[in-house]
Formats: sequence, C-alpha cells, structure tokens
Amino acid sequence: MTTAESSSLKVAIIGGGLVGALEACFFAKRGHNVRLYEYREDIRLVEEIRGRSINLALSARGRAALREVGLEDLLVKDHGIPMRARMIHGKDCSLTEILYDPVNKNCIYSVNRRYLNEVLLNAAEKYPNVRLYFNKKLVSADLERGKMTFLDRKTSEEEETSADLIVGADGAFSTVRRIMTKRPLYNFSQTYIEHGYMELCIPAKDDGKFAMAKNNLHIWPRGEFMMIALPNQDGSYTVTLFAPFETFNSLNTARKLLDFFREQFPDAVPLLGEDKLTEDFFSNKPLPLISIKCRPFHVQSSALIIGDAAHAMVPFYGQGMNTGFEDCLILDRLFETHRSDLSKVLPAFSEARCTDSHVICDLAMYNYIEMRDLVNKKSFIVRKHLDTFLYWLLPNTWVPLYNSVHFSRIPFHKCTANRSWQEKIIRRGAYFLITIIFAVLVGILSGQRIIKF
Amino acid sequence: MTTAESSSLKVAIIGGGLVGALEACFFAKRGHNVRLYEYREDIRLVEEIRGRSINLALSARGRAALREVGLEDLLVKDHGIPMRARMIHGKDCSLTEILYDPVNKNCIYSVNRRYLNEVLLNAAEKYPNVRLYFNKKLVSADLERGKMTFLDRKTSEEEETSADLIVGADGAFSTVRRIMTKRPLYNFSQTYIEHGYMELCIPAKDDGKFAMAKNNLHIWPRGEFMMIALPNQDGSYTVTLFAPFETFNSLNTARKLLDFFREQFPDAVPLLGEDKLTEDFFSNKPLPLISIKCRPFHVQSSALIIGDAAHAMVPFYGQGMNTGFEDCLILDRLFETHRSDLSKVLPAFSEARCTDSHVICDLAMYNYIEMRDLVNKKSFIVRKHLDTFLYWLLPNTWVPLYNSVHFSRIPFHKCTANRSWQEKIIRRGAYFLITIIFAVLVGILSGQRIIKF
Repeated sequence: MTTAESSSLKVAIIGGGLVGALEACFFAKRGHNVRLYEYREDIRLVEEIRGRSINLALSARGRAALREVGLEDLLVKDHGIPMRARMIHGKDCSLTEILYDPVNKNCIYSVNRRYLNEVLLNAAEKYPNVRLYFNKKLVSADLERGKMTFLDRKTSEEEETSADLIVGADGAFSTVRRIMTKRPLYNFSQTYIEHGYMELCIPAKDDGKFAMAKNNLHIWPRGEFMMIALPNQDGSYTVTLFAPFETFNSLNTARKLLDFFREQFPDAVPLLGEDKLTEDFFSNKPLPLISIKCRPFHVQSSALIIGDAAHAMVPFYGQGMNTGFEDCLILDRLFETHRSDLSKVLPAFSEARCTDSHVICDLAMYNYIEMRDLVNKKSFIVRKHLDTFLYWLLPNTWVPLYNSVHFSRIPFHKCTANRSWQEKIIRRGAYFLITIIFAVLVGILSGQRIIKF
Repeated sequence: MTTAESSSLKVAIIGGGLVGALEACFFAKRGHNVRLYEYREDIRLVEEIRGRSINLALSARGRAALREVGLEDLLVKDHGIPMRARMIHGKDCSLTEILYDPVNKNCIYSVNRRYLNEVLLNAAEKYPNVRLYFNKKLVSADLERGKMTFLDRKTSEEEETSADLIVGADGAFSTVRRIMTKRPLYNFSQTYIEHGYMELCIPAKDDGKFAMAKNNLHIWPRGEFMMIALPNQDGSYTVTLFAPFETFNSLNTARKLLDFFREQFPDAVPLLGEDKLTEDFFSNKPLPLISIKCRPFHVQSSALIIGDAAHAMVPFYGQGMNTGFEDCLILDRLFETHRSDLSKVLPAFSEARCTDSHVICDLAMYNYIEMRDLVNKKSFIVRKHLDTFLYWLLPNTWVPLYNSVHFSRIPFHKCTANRSWQEKIIRRGAYFLITIIFAVLVGILSGQRIIKF
C-alpha cells in the first residue's frame, strides 16, 4: 500500500475534518510521516456534534479522490443514497422532477458527514506512519520555517514542534490562513451572504421508510428564500431552511412560524410535525454562510492550505467537500510529477487550484439565485431542455455546466468557459434566426411588390 | 464659524493624513470636541517624506468638500495646476491630446500631497475644539465601547482613552478596520495587483519652466505597463512608472534600464536625464498597489472608518483622495439630517457609501487597463468621439462615465448604471442598423428579381 519516496517528509496537517483526514491518507500512502492535529476532541468518541451540516452531496470529484485511497465503494455504494433528480415542491403542493443527468443517468450521493469523517479518520489511523492528536489548538506558526506552537486544550500546556511541510486543512476560519494573510502581496476576501441557514428534520415514517421520494434532492424554491431536504440512511431527511436573517428574526413566535410554514411549505408541515418543527426551530439559531477566496495557497516550500481553509464556499453547488477532496487528489498528482520536490509542488498547486477555486466559489454564490428562484421560471426550464437535447446530440461538445461540475473532473474554469461559449452560440443563433426571418419577410413583400425599393 | 450642536460629542480621529485632517475640520465646525491621533510625527516638522505619491489629481468631489471648510480657493485656484487633457506619448515620440471635457471645459487639478496635508492640519488646528497628537500608535480598541489604547512612540508609554465616536481615517492598512474585520458577518477583501509603481522626476528646465506641456496629465501607455507624469508648482513633473514586478526585477543593470527607457519612452529619456533616472531608479524599489473593499463601515453607534481605511483603491481613476474627501462631506450631511444621532448617522453612512466605494474601487481597477492599453486602440478613440458628440447633443442625458465621475457628484453606482445603459443603447443601435441594411439589401435584390421568394 505504501509507495516509499526516496526521502520521506515530516508533514503536519492542521485539522482532522473531512479534508485533513483524507489528506493524511494520501501523504501516508506516499510514505511520508504524518502528524494530524485537531482542535476538537475525537469525534469518534463524541455523542453529538452540533453546528455543522449533517449530510453532504458527494459527486465525481470527491469520488475520484476517495477511489484513490480505496474508500469509494464503502462510502458511495454501501453508504451513500443516490439522488437522481431535483424534486421541486410548489406552494400548491405540486411536484416536478428535474433529472440531473437525463443523458448519462449520473447521480449525486447523500452521505452523512459524521460517518464520512469517522471512516476517514479510521483509514488514516491504519497507516503506521500517521499519528492523530486531538484537542490541539494551533496558537502560532512560523510558516517559512515550519515551526508551530500548539495549546493542549485538556492540559492547557503549550508545546512547540516543527515539520517540513505544514498543511492547513483547518476550515473556513483557518488559523494557518490567518497567518498567511498577513504576508506581503497576499490577496484575500471573506464574504458573508445576508442569508443564514437552519437545519430541521423530517423523521422516517413509523415503518422506517422515507416520507418522501427517496432518490431526490428536494427543493422548495420560494424566490427570496428556500428549503431543501437530503435523505439519510435511517429513513429521515435533513432539511435546511435558507433565508435572510431578517426572515428568521421575524418568525419570533410559534404562531408566526407555523403560519409561515403552512403558507410556504404546506406539504412539508405534516412531515416535519408542527410540535417538532417549533421545538427544533426555537432551540436553534440561524448560522451564517461565508465565502472565502485567497491567493496563493502556499508559502515558499513549507506551507499550504487546502479545503475550506483555502476556499470556503456557500453550499449551493454542493461542491465544498468535493473541491476539498479534489485538492488532495491534485496535490498527490503534483507530488508524483515533481517527485516530492516541495519547491515545485507547492507553487504548482496554487497555480492549479487558486483560479479554479475562485470560479467554483462564484458559481456556488450564483447557484443560490438559481436554486431559490430561477428553477421556478419558464426560461430556466426551456434552457434546461435545450441543454439536455444538445448534450444528447453532441455528448462530447455540449456538456451542460451542471454536468461538467458534478459528473466530470474538467477544471472549473473550463466548465464556465464552456458555458460562456454555449451562451454565445445560443445568443448568436437567436439573433441570426431573427435577422433571417425579418429579411425573408421583407424579400417576400418586396418580391410581391407590396413594398418597393 | 462653529455651528454648536445641542450636545457636543467627544470624537477621536485615528490618522492625520488628508482625510483625517479634513474630517477634523468638519467635526470642529459642528462644535464637537475632536482629538486627532497620528502614528507618524508632524509632517509639518519633517524635511522629507518617502513612500507616498507626491502629487494627486483633485476633482469635483474633493473640491466640494474643501469648499465646505473654506479651503477650495487656496488649494485649487492658488495652488493647483489645471490639467485639461490627457497627453498621449507614442513610442515614435508622437503626441496626441485627448481633452477630458471638450463640452464643459472642466479640468482636474494637480496638487502636492504634502502641501495639501499641511494646509489641512493647519486649518484643523485653528479650531479651538481640535487637538492634534502625533507619534501615537493605536494599539487596541474596543469599538463598541469607544475605548482605545495608544502607544506613544517617543516615550514608549501606553495610555488609555475613550470617545463617543472613533473615526478610523488610518489609511489602507488601518488598525481600526483590522479590529472591525474580526466582527461577525464582516465582509472584507484585500487585493494586490501584480504591478508595482515607482516615482521618478522630470526636473524644471534651467529657466524654471516646464519641460513638457504644463496643463496635461502625460501618459505613455504601453500595453502591459505605462508611465504617467503630473506637473508640480516648481516646474517639475512627478513621473510614475507602473509595471509588473517582474518587469522591475528584470531591469537590474543601468544598461538594461536605459535600453528599456530608450525603447519605450524615447521622448522622456532626455527630460528624466540618464544619470538621474539611473540613480532614482536604483535608489528606490517598486511599491505595491492594494485595493480594499469592506462592508459595513461602522460599528453600532460608536465607530466608523472613512477614506482609504474604508476603500483603498488603485490610483488609476484618480479618485482615492476625492472619494475620501467626499466621505467627509456626506458624513457631515448625515449629521445634519439625523441631528447628530449616531445610531442613525453611522448606519446611514454605510448605506450611502459602501456600494459606491466598491464601484469606484472596481472602476479604478478597470481603468488601469484603459490607461495603459485601450487609449492606444482605435475603437476607444471612436467611442470617445461618439460619447463627446452625444454629450454635446444631449448634455443632461448622455454624460460620459469619466465626466460623471470626475466632474459631478452623481453617486458612483449611478455613474456606472448610466454607462451600462449607454452601452446597451449603442449595441442595440448597431444591431438595428445592421439588420435594416441587410433587409434593405435583400429587398432591393428581390425587387429586382435577382433573388426570388
């Protein structure tokens, strides 16, 4: 299993979430010595985790990375629930199914965040060259020299350590990135959207079965806000309400809440249960959504950020985790290409990933508008059908944006460049048609001497 | 001179640069008690200041603010040098003059940064309710509670103080903003461009006269880089070279530098003087250019950022200082409207200024491309002439972007909305013309039975 390198590196991974744990597997497979430091305690020993989304949509990019460390089948085939289509719930309780990929029948998979994280930590721990440390808070780091100071959150003791390479996989509020941001010429942006999210739950039916169609990502698009639901292994759905903070704030009594839900999501109310909905809603508070872009992702040949630390995005394209997993895969390929020469691998990683991650961050932001609004519009449906037809006709040439993002590993910037090209063709085609029709009409009228030149 | 408010506020202004000093005058005029804290020593006592641009272009927005505190005439009429046009210098030593405002003959004014700052500090100091403190470094602040800790850079002693309102006018690397950025839901971005700048000098001729046309902003646009020159009171020009850092780095010998200048800026070399150019170039290093956007500009009813602290921009639209000065004017108007009620004034200021400042930051970024490249292109010149013609024809309807930004106080977002509308009209007009011509041709051919329907 282990591909020994000519010289093995001391790698410190900061963060034992999904991307950090997967990255540990990749480095271990290459024979490097990995120490993974996680701020929280070991989630495998914790009963309940709050404040993070419960399930996630896994697609091609994430799957490709999991395949590489031998975990794809376990997570996708054995555990994941395939979602073949969006199921649009109207305010009149109507249902409209929009297939993700009518041509190739590809699916995205609903997976449980906690299960996935546990599987990845177990996999990492199995490598003899990986050690996991929990309750270790990174206090400071000298990224150029690979030096770090950790605070042990149990003993309150500080300890210093060093590594050849520091990998920040410490999430949207990354400490490693915060240190990077202070460097000269560092580009950085953090954007909070004016909408928050709250997770609710539709439990399984009494017989343990799903209360709605199982193989769908359910969406209640309502223009200014929306609700979605993804299926879980146990027959329940994790439901997420996305709305402006002021909408959340205005629902300050059970009465207002239920009136709002009965009007906006009438078919969901009996499934959520009025009492349970009220209890869940008022025992939680809406959480913010942040989008992070930065450049570069590395410092010299000694530090790197990956995953949400490098490109946290709003969740509306379902690509946050997938992009993070793809980071691991691309980094691994670069280690291969440049024979673990960090002075080449790290700049090449920034080169390969910065622009692409900015593109997917922007797409995710844009898709919020599409999900909560455009899917209600005729023009969107017509365009979707046109795309599907052209994709069926020209499967290698006309890949719709959604398909290239979810079901291919085409770099994100090429996906959007393709889309721009498609838009141009359609626009020009339309102008051309109109001009021809107009000219033919003029020609006919003039030929019949109805108009004269 | 002093308009007494019903209750006067304790205002702490952080930063005694252009915007901080002007803001002190505005607050003093309203009868508030102002303490201004500047990190550096008093520039009025210093011989030479390095690292900041030497002259600046003052236009309508800045003038309007200076007028309000009675300084417009002194700075514009007595001191400023009017620049009526861009003077484009070709590689073949050709000169092309492009008037800024052929219709109304408006000018922008070249003013000396240091002189301007001294005038503003003197003006602020004249108010009995203003006190200036120099060598005071803001170490930390509790923005909600108006508490601040300063380090005296002479005595190395720390002192604590408080105010009803903290105003951060502490520039692109603002400490006040850095503290704001850590607050929840704070949006922030810092972008460095890949180009740096270096200031050089064309001295006055032996007779004290200007070596080039005086009333111009001189531009040597060269695609990937450019050089500009603004006139100074003493007959000299401050010349600024903008180029990719790698271009600066490649000019690492006197030979290479002179070859480069002789090829790219042949008419400027004798004016710069080969020896002086070489000396200036190698005793300086290129400085970075940063663009800062953030939102909001205030914290509750106790803190605010203005000027570069709130919206540092690249210098290519000549609006950095003007926008900062306009901040002071708009804030003053809001104090009037909301009768100094900080809980209303501060949110209203963010509302009025955030979007507008993002627009001008983006315009400034875009204008770098225009200045160094597009002005060389035929399409740009044609569009400029079309704009001028339509502006002359419809002076109230068709205000070109450059004119509305420089010579009006139309909010920036309306300037760009206008521009988008103009682009749409031109595009549609062009399509319409082409379609009509095509149809007429078809009609003629068909009427003559050359083609048949």
